Amino acid sequence: MRATIIHKPGDIRVETVPDPKIVSPTDAIIRAVATCVCGSDLWDYRGINPVDEPHPMGHEYVGVVEEVGREVVTVKPGQFVIGSFATSDNTCPNCRNGYQSSCVHREFMSTCQAEAFRVPLADGTLVATSGQPGQELLPSLLTLSDVMGTGWYAAVAAEVKPGSTVAVVGDGAVGLCGVIAARELGAERIIAMSRHQPRWQLATEFGATDLVTERGDEGVARIKELTSGIGADSVLECVGTNESMQQALRSTRPGGNVGFVGVPHDAQISGEELFYSHVALRGGPAPVRRFLPDLIDRVLNGRINPGKVFDLTLPLDQAAEAYRAMDERRAIKVLLRP
Amino acid sequence: MRATIIHKPGDIRVETVPDPKIVSPTDAIIRAVATCVCGSDLWDYRGINPVDEPHPMGHEYVGVVEEVGREVVTVKPGQFVIGSFATSDNTCPNCRNGYQSSCVHREFMSTCQAEAFRVPLADGTLVATSGQPGQELLPSLLTLSDVMGTGWYAAVAAEVKPGSTVAVVGDGAVGLCGVIAARELGAERIIAMSRHQPRWQLATEFGATDLVTERGDEGVARIKELTSGIGADSVLECVGTNESMQQALRSTRPGGNVGFVGVPHDAQISGEELFYSHVALRGGPAPVRRFLPDLIDRVLNGRINPGKVFDLTLPLDQAAEAYRAMDERRAIKVLLRP
Repeated sequence: MRATIIHKPGDIRVETVPDPKIVSPTDAIIRAVATCVCGSDLWDYRGINPVDEPHPMGHEYVGVVEEVGREVVTVKPGQFVIGSFATSDNTCPNCRNGYQSSCVHREFMSTCQAEAFRVPLADGTLVATSGQPGQELLPSLLTLSDVMGTGWYAAVAAEVKPGSTVAVVGDGAVGLCGVIAARELGAERIIAMSRHQPRWQLATEFGATDLVTERGDEGVARIKELTSGIGADSVLECVGTNESMQQALRSTRPGGNVGFVGVPHDAQISGEELFYSHVALRGGPAPVRRFLPDLIDRVLNGRINPGKVFDLTLPLDQAAEAYRAMDERRAIKVLLRP
Repeated sequence: MRATIIHKPGDIRVETVPDPKIVSPTDAIIRAVATCVCGSDLWDYRGINPVDEPHPMGHEYVGVVEEVGREVVTVKPGQFVIGSFATSDNTCPNCRNGYQSSCVHREFMSTCQAEAFRVPLADGTLVATSGQPGQELLPSLLTLSDVMGTGWYAAVAAEVKPGSTVAVVGDGAVGLCGVIAARELGAERIIAMSRHQPRWQLATEFGATDLVTERGDEGVARIKELTSGIGADSVLECVGTNESMQQALRSTRPGGNVGFVGVPHDAQISGEELFYSHVALRGGPAPVRRFLPDLIDRVLNGRINPGKVFDLTLPLDQAAEAYRAMDERRAIKVLLRP
């Protein structure tokens, strides 16, 4: 089968590799219907994460179950499924507490930009839809695997409530999905921080009520101006740099909450600054599995349409171009069709 | 009048200084009934905070109103009052959000180890009791000004709920008051981390159900052993060092909460570690004013008796000995009577 392999930073190839096989009785093999490139894949592509040897890429997926191990009971061959980028048994104490991405048996998916792939802990990781969804729903269902689930978690971690004032730092696919989540959770004002017109247009379509184009201290000052001088109730940090984390913290009012979902790279938080801010911080890899049933419903009902974050669709064989387009910010997010 | 002045680290003197005066129409002058020495006063005493010039000390107090400015309406001369270590107007957006210690007009009290002192923003800072409380209640009422209010905030910030498993890092007066707060908020298990017998005896009396004497990685391992391998739901960080902050973070389960109230000194939090922990952090100077009416009720009803943290009472003139006793850990907390 064909699969996407990174050889070194900037060097993405689609190659023929052995078909995936059941390794453990709790595995499933999924035939990909759609997969995509994540902002976090660019950390490898740009060499910010080391690439010591060639390895497969991809952790976002929807597909059809091809085969299951003998202990798998909740999904069957032929079913259309969506799964989290992090596997989970969905039974351990952390899973029961709603933090499936801290499952004691967690693995991170990493081979999904391919025609097929193996999903460990299939029962606890995958959710099947009833019947095969229409083609027009595929992009939105695909986002639930990571970016929409992650934007949702950012809003939940930032404790967005009906009537909240929310700011979203980051205008990538996750930030844009965070706008959707904030709106669905009842936010009254949603301030998108963006300086790229196609992105803030989409943010507005998703529910953003205000736009801040400034960054850093100026961005913080603008947020304060818009929020009676004190800052937003909830801030979604969807980038992962030291600068974006500081911007998020300083844009939040005393007693407010930051949900941070950009994977931090060299971000250090001053205990003293956090102390005097009175702001609560919660982050982490999103427990997508917790949200999947609800988010699948919202997509199938047409309440949300996060699939609009895909502004380019390419065949899997053009994965290298997909990475280039995202790296050069020519595309927000690229869907790959095997 | 007599007041406590620090001249340099280790050099505490009680001296005659001018009587306090109304400066602003929102001020009150309080005649101290009791005051005390705080763990945070030791940062100055030990020279960890610089002492550039002699200055007065003290931010915990109960007393009787002697005089009020012309705009003060809620407290009157002759009333017994308790106030927060941080002043607040109790009307600004941060106050209305319950974060009075981030009041836009906040000042930190700093002259209370004295016979009398000025309280700015008296209406928003002080709470009067109905009538003069009995002598036996004075120590407990005095703790509400800071340590009991701070322990309470730590438990609230750590989101202690009925049935929670709670760990308390730090066995000073604040940590001990945190045990009281956790019990009052319904915690089922309260794990005190302490290696000093008089302190863990008091912790047990206050409601601790388990004791961990180990520190650092060993302490974390013990907490995990006691909590199905995953960590406590809520951890109260009541010290403020880098080590205690790490111990708190690592003792908390994914999805759990740390309330941190030790003023951080050189504590840096790794964004990456916090991210993968799934733990929420909220800290800060306690918004004592939010909790005062409720905590006064609990003391007057005899539900809580945090005054037991005072294991030494001295006349104000012996303030130097009070600091020495706390510095040498001969006393948990020293009450001073003017």
